[in-house]
Amino acid sequence: MSKKVGVLLAGCGVYDGSEIHEAVLTMLYLDQADADIICMAPNMEQYHVIDHLSGTEASEKRNVLVESARIARGKIKDLKEVQASDMDALIIPGGFGAAKNLSDFAINNIKAKVHPEVQRIITDMINGKKPVGAICIAPATLTKAIADKHPEVTIGNDLGTADAIEKMGGKHVACAVDQIHVDRKRKIVTTPAYMLGPNIKNVAMGIEKLVTEVLAMI
Amino acid sequence: MSKKVGVLLAGCGVYDGSEIHEAVLTMLYLDQADADIICMAPNMEQYHVIDHLSGTEASEKRNVLVESARIARGKIKDLKEVQASDMDALIIPGGFGAAKNLSDFAINNIKAKVHPEVQRIITDMINGKKPVGAICIAPATLTKAIADKHPEVTIGNDLGTADAIEKMGGKHVACAVDQIHVDRKRKIVTTPAYMLGPNIKNVAMGIEKLVTEVLAMI
Repeated sequence: MSKKVGVLLAGCGVYDGSEIHEAVLTMLYLDQADADIICMAPNMEQYHVIDHLSGTEASEKRNVLVESARIARGKIKDLKEVQASDMDALIIPGGFGAAKNLSDFAINNIKAKVHPEVQRIITDMINGKKPVGAICIAPATLTKAIADKHPEVTIGNDLGTADAIEKMGGKHVACAVDQIHVDRKRKIVTTPAYMLGPNIKNVAMGIEKLVTEVLAMI
Repeated sequence: MSKKVGVLLAGCGVYDGSEIHEAVLTMLYLDQADADIICMAPNMEQYHVIDHLSGTEASEKRNVLVESARIARGKIKDLKEVQASDMDALIIPGGFGAAKNLSDFAINNIKAKVHPEVQRIITDMINGKKPVGAICIAPATLTKAIADKHPEVTIGNDLGTADAIEKMGGKHVACAVDQIHVDRKRKIVTTPAYMLGPNIKNVAMGIEKLVTEVLAMI
């Protein structure tokens, strides 16, 4: 039977949602490995909307689940309807949405609050000994959610973010973009992706390894 | 020197813009082949906005260039500022935006009008003997733009769309999702992608071949 892997999205676009390349590459490598993909996102208003052409904040409002549905081609579940028992593993792509919507780490740093449904699904997966992958900035939200478990995660080479990971209770591990770090005790796999980049081919190498390792841990 | 390849986007999302997976896969395989990617889109209001969760039309308005910038991570040009002389080849991913924004084929079928800037860039590329790739539904807009040249293109197996291709002056060629059709005379490469699907791994096979062939034709 196919392995069921959740992909937790946070909108659609690097500056206010899920990083699109990271999300699509995650889905590509999962599908190539014949996993069943369960896309999900919290049904909430985005922290804000960024005009990705100008880089400035727009005055409109968008919904995280509705925008995430663009990446999922409409096949997506409201996170609150998903249980850890529905899947064998969970992967969280990066993009600022992972630190603006799934938590508010991008705004409140080490005082970040994790969205309650995101907190629930991550906690249930980790407590259930099911593997969790986190890409790019998503390990910051993951760390905050399970700070008491002191996860080992990558974040690229941004000293401020690495320091915040440690202050929240995690352990930051240096890692190249084409590599992964595996925290075997907690069954967590992370890769820096666009925290380092620079290009999609580099990011793809780390994400392919992350997907392979997450599936192998099931 | 790296080959320069334009990627003509049409928004961000299968139902009202560029199909996100097709666009990202195009960029992945171009980058893996060490091509320079030049993303571009027309600066225009989208034909409409579709809520990708419900599948229904939303009342808001969005701009094609601004939304395309989400896929391009902000690195994108207004199509009107791009010349055929800036690039060695052009690839047009699919998604309804390619037939709602780049032309209005999805609405007006064989009476479709092609956006003037899209018409210009396609005509200049074809007249300059530079290869053009078109994915999914994009070959319909391509056919309308160069109907007098009677291009051979794929569209999947939708009989109505195939018939429209022929009525507009093109020649429809049956093609599996993991294959491409090469019109050597006109230097056009097409693949059905999500016109057939069903999954991202299938679509990826055709797009990888399309990118390889487009680059080989330069």
